[in-house]
Amino acid sequence: MNYNFSDRVKNLKPSAIREIFKYAADPEVVSFSAGNPSSLAFPAEEIAQISNKILNNSPVDALQYSLTEGYTPLRNFLKTYLNDTHKIGRDFDDLIVTTGAQQVIDLFTKVMCNEGDVVVCENPSFVGALNCFRSHSTIPVGVDIDDDGINLESLEQTLKNNKNAKFIYTIPNFQNPSGITMSLEKRKAVYELAKKYNVLILEDNPYGDLRFEGDYIPTIKSLDTDGIVVYVGSFSKVLSPGMRVGYVCADSNIIKKMVVCKQTNDVHTNIWAQLVAFDFISNYDFNAHLDKLRKIYLDKMTLTEKTFNEFLAPKGISYIKPQGGLFIWCKLPDYVNMMDYCKKAVLEKVCVVPGTAFLADENQISHHFRINFSAPSDDDIVKGFEILSNVDF
Amino acid sequence: MNYNFSDRVKNLKPSAIREIFKYAADPEVVSFSAGNPSSLAFPAEEIAQISNKILNNSPVDALQYSLTEGYTPLRNFLKTYLNDTHKIGRDFDDLIVTTGAQQVIDLFTKVMCNEGDVVVCENPSFVGALNCFRSHSTIPVGVDIDDDGINLESLEQTLKNNKNAKFIYTIPNFQNPSGITMSLEKRKAVYELAKKYNVLILEDNPYGDLRFEGDYIPTIKSLDTDGIVVYVGSFSKVLSPGMRVGYVCADSNIIKKMVVCKQTNDVHTNIWAQLVAFDFISNYDFNAHLDKLRKIYLDKMTLTEKTFNEFLAPKGISYIKPQGGLFIWCKLPDYVNMMDYCKKAVLEKVCVVPGTAFLADENQISHHFRINFSAPSDDDIVKGFEILSNVDF
Repeated sequence: MNYNFSDRVKNLKPSAIREIFKYAADPEVVSFSAGNPSSLAFPAEEIAQISNKILNNSPVDALQYSLTEGYTPLRNFLKTYLNDTHKIGRDFDDLIVTTGAQQVIDLFTKVMCNEGDVVVCENPSFVGALNCFRSHSTIPVGVDIDDDGINLESLEQTLKNNKNAKFIYTIPNFQNPSGITMSLEKRKAVYELAKKYNVLILEDNPYGDLRFEGDYIPTIKSLDTDGIVVYVGSFSKVLSPGMRVGYVCADSNIIKKMVVCKQTNDVHTNIWAQLVAFDFISNYDFNAHLDKLRKIYLDKMTLTEKTFNEFLAPKGISYIKPQGGLFIWCKLPDYVNMMDYCKKAVLEKVCVVPGTAFLADENQISHHFRINFSAPSDDDIVKGFEILSNVDF
Repeated sequence: MNYNFSDRVKNLKPSAIREIFKYAADPEVVSFSAGNPSSLAFPAEEIAQISNKILNNSPVDALQYSLTEGYTPLRNFLKTYLNDTHKIGRDFDDLIVTTGAQQVIDLFTKVMCNEGDVVVCENPSFVGALNCFRSHSTIPVGVDIDDDGINLESLEQTLKNNKNAKFIYTIPNFQNPSGITMSLEKRKAVYELAKKYNVLILEDNPYGDLRFEGDYIPTIKSLDTDGIVVYVGSFSKVLSPGMRVGYVCADSNIIKKMVVCKQTNDVHTNIWAQLVAFDFISNYDFNAHLDKLRKIYLDKMTLTEKTFNEFLAPKGISYIKPQGGLFIWCKLPDYVNMMDYCKKAVLEKVCVVPGTAFLADENQISHHFRINFSAPSDDDIVKGFEILSNVDF
């Protein structure tokens, strides 16, 4: 039967990278394409202990319907924690728990944007956010990034040119896919530009706690005296992505609208996962756990750097070394057809993500591909880079 | 700060019943207002066993990112189970796991409806669905229901009058809030009308397994030779609502669009909950568990009937006895102001849901209120009905 789908999804397709991902299911393929944390990064024993305690002592708390806004003790803990660690949250702000950070992007787009409105994004940016904007018939417009974050001249020009821009979407720390971190000066400038052009900022910070080098840089939300920054956090990279627990801190008027939409979206977030997350961050040594993760990813990055220099640098492939996060953003020489390279690589059983997937305009040409260094084993990193170095171009 | 919200949410408010729900937090209040399963209905020990096994033996499976479509063994099990028990699923159909049934309503509305399109609903209907339609700027248009389900003449007239109707939303079994079950003849007629007027059917069946009286009636989806019925199921009422696991079976072309939108909504459903649900339905005696639930609710309904007849029937309040589910739909005498009655009741510390909350047009007058009999204790049922009988009108 032919279905008459809504205009907003009629031309929405699974992203082109899905074609390449199909091959990644082959157990012989070295996959650099996921966004998965290392499987060594989960505090599995502690989660098992906590879960067992909850399900034995107070099972109804974990199994019954719960509040749309999230588990109150977890909300309160996060408010204090974010204030202490990131100077996030003023009197006008509120915080709710969501089904991952992805749900925040979806709910915020839904409450702020009419069809045809513009969202200003870093170019490249997170594919899940770009597709989310598209799914609401909102138009992502990309602004190129420099080594220290979004290009300010291009950003201002884009804001000038798009009167129907509603917000700027940014991942300031170890950006997905570029790995780039925005400098404090740029964070301040982006905040001022948002004020000047009357747009909001959606600050997505899933990797912020995974800094393995360099100095901490304050969040944009910490500058927010005007209620224009919506801060998104997640337990996916610091506890478990399978649990699907994220959160958003923003002006309470924005939060109220998001709550109404969340209620019609999934009623509330899995409450077992909220109870486990709360117990873990409040009763265990969360800082020691984060230190452990940073060590895991520093080791992965060190191996990645060494192996990259051995196999890929001599081929003229380059990248800007990230100070945290899960990804490196590799640039092929200008004369190489990136998509051909990625297709050849997957036939040689190494899966990387073509750069076009991350562009606001997918028809733009890209010479980049993304490599995830957190999920593959050390052996696979070495094996995969060696194979990549033998892919002809 | 004044925010310029999207048109679709600008006038979206938390429903009026929230005002009354505020009082329900008072522990002295007898709450008939929830939609919660009985806390006796959770197989808590089994869930604790299963969870413990998973988190000790294969924690990464429960903690890592997973597929948007859902856990493959659970999807396969449900396909077979629905086919065996409800004759659901043809070659053209597919099934995915969702974050509760609520997410299906949201995703399906998003993929089928443009802003301004109409969804034809039973009047009254589930408030979470009505608000979801509104949140997409889709207009719910209500069709009155008779004792055996939706009124067919009104349904046809409504389909004739609304050329931009995209689908019919129905809860055929023990409808929320009316408790009414649609006869087989009406199910067939609704299916034929949908075909005739080229609209789809969203068949929501959260309570189907909770039949404590009368004979099984085939699902509308079992009649679906044309791929026009989207069937929604849920573990919320038969396992645990806090886990947020539902599913949808529909033509694979519809499912594909929903998967793209689900990916941008929450990536995937909490995978721990999917693993637990799969283990429970495949390795435990699910039928014996359902029999236990039916017995719990039959006992609650028997007490409800007896107590209603003692306290509320003499006041001229009536209801149609449901053959399953969680609710009775009480009708006040025509001369009584329903909202005043509900407000007085809550001041006397009994919380019921005003009927207007469930109307497609909230400004329509209602003489009904909804009572949930599954969640309150037996003592609270007796105490609450006695108090309700003393509320003046």
